[in-house]
Amino acid sequence: MIEAIRLHRSIRSYRPDQIKPDLLDQVLHAATRASTTGNMQVYSIVVTQEPDLKKQLWEAHFKQDMVLQAPVHLTFCADFNRFTQWCHLRDANPGYDNFLSFLTAAIDALLAAQNAALEAEELGLGICYLGTATWMADRIISILDLPELVVPVAAMVLGYPDEDPPLTDRLPLDGVVHREKYHRYQAGDIDRIYGEKEMLESTRELLKINQKKTLAQVFTDNRYTKADNRHFSKAFLDVLTRQGFMNHPDDS
Amino acid sequence: MIEAIRLHRSIRSYRPDQIKPDLLDQVLHAATRASTTGNMQVYSIVVTQEPDLKKQLWEAHFKQDMVLQAPVHLTFCADFNRFTQWCHLRDANPGYDNFLSFLTAAIDALLAAQNAALEAEELGLGICYLGTATWMADRIISILDLPELVVPVAAMVLGYPDEDPPLTDRLPLDGVVHREKYHRYQAGDIDRIYGEKEMLESTRELLKINQKKTLAQVFTDNRYTKADNRHFSKAFLDVLTRQGFMNHPDDS
Repeated sequence: MIEAIRLHRSIRSYRPDQIKPDLLDQVLHAATRASTTGNMQVYSIVVTQEPDLKKQLWEAHFKQDMVLQAPVHLTFCADFNRFTQWCHLRDANPGYDNFLSFLTAAIDALLAAQNAALEAEELGLGICYLGTATWMADRIISILDLPELVVPVAAMVLGYPDEDPPLTDRLPLDGVVHREKYHRYQAGDIDRIYGEKEMLESTRELLKINQKKTLAQVFTDNRYTKADNRHFSKAFLDVLTRQGFMNHPDDS
Repeated sequence: MIEAIRLHRSIRSYRPDQIKPDLLDQVLHAATRASTTGNMQVYSIVVTQEPDLKKQLWEAHFKQDMVLQAPVHLTFCADFNRFTQWCHLRDANPGYDNFLSFLTAAIDALLAAQNAALEAEELGLGICYLGTATWMADRIISILDLPELVVPVAAMVLGYPDEDPPLTDRLPLDGVVHREKYHRYQAGDIDRIYGEKEMLESTRELLKINQKKTLAQVFTDNRYTKADNRHFSKAFLDVLTRQGFMNHPDDS
């Protein structure tokens, strides 16, 4: 298996060492080799290293220490702005102010992001995705000055690891893979798929710390609550409207 | 650079040779090592090899020959169904029937997809993403029997290449990378970024075949039209509603 895939784990503690420009460019170059719809490359990567801007991003990303520690912060954006401007300048009539185009551009951005993550790890760097990129899209748009038809979909910190954590557990392969068609889960399937994870020592500790009876409750009550998800759903849909991705008049 | 990243190009012609189960499992296993939000693994991968099902997928994917040729078809789905069932069985109150949760799950699915693509290429296989996965989500849901809270976001064919195409052109690195913040493009920037692509021999041929004056017009008039994008935007938003990802009551 590709070593960077086999050995991947998120790094949340970084040494202060800077990343040399050549090395960083190799990571960015790797990102651009990913598949992209119709070879349109409808994404942008914002590379932030300046301390004041990183501090603003740290605040946006729920003040996770690693955002301040890591020397480089990458924001992967769905971007139909550049392509649309190109169309306008070339006597073409662009129609990318809609949800499908956002989705297309988001897919482009995410495939590029994963290439960057793996190439960074190949080069001895550590990475961690920041799930808060979609939650806090509005704030990030403001900090990075993202124009119309540009929306962040992933963010990642990059730097030299100051920790060496073990690999994270995963569900058994047949817990996520379906053969031929989707097979609907029965209670017994769920027990089997989640059983190993529920028996981990780390799970017992989590239950104790969070004072919960089941691991699922740690997710629903503390980590990813219905109230938060609904709040951030509306916030992101508002962002899509404001950035110009929700124009579907009923008569079209 | 990771060889699979450096040498990636989409393969659209395949030999009939089957992929051995062990090899395929290695590709799937690589997919599961990708980063996933909160280690929830809220995605599923449907592996389709059965000829009749592949024929139905071929029809859904605009009858692209490679879908019939390639021995394996992978569909990557945003999936909060399994996780939600787990919550119900563990006395927890899941709140994942909303747009943010779809987005979270889609990101998980896409990072897994790119790991699978690279590992497949590392193993000597060729791959090609099918952009039609989001366009035809409704039909794919029906073919693969995807339940509530499961939506396809990417599809890929996999097999042994029967062609050896060159690498595809890309925009210059500074055409997609922004330093510190987003820099807004001026007309001169657009000319510079797209200039090389517009001068390619393959572009001249495209203009001739499509009888267009500019490359941008090939995209806006033929490949990705406003009418299609709006149509498929509504279709995908309908799919999100029907699959249960758009529950945000105004009083929440």
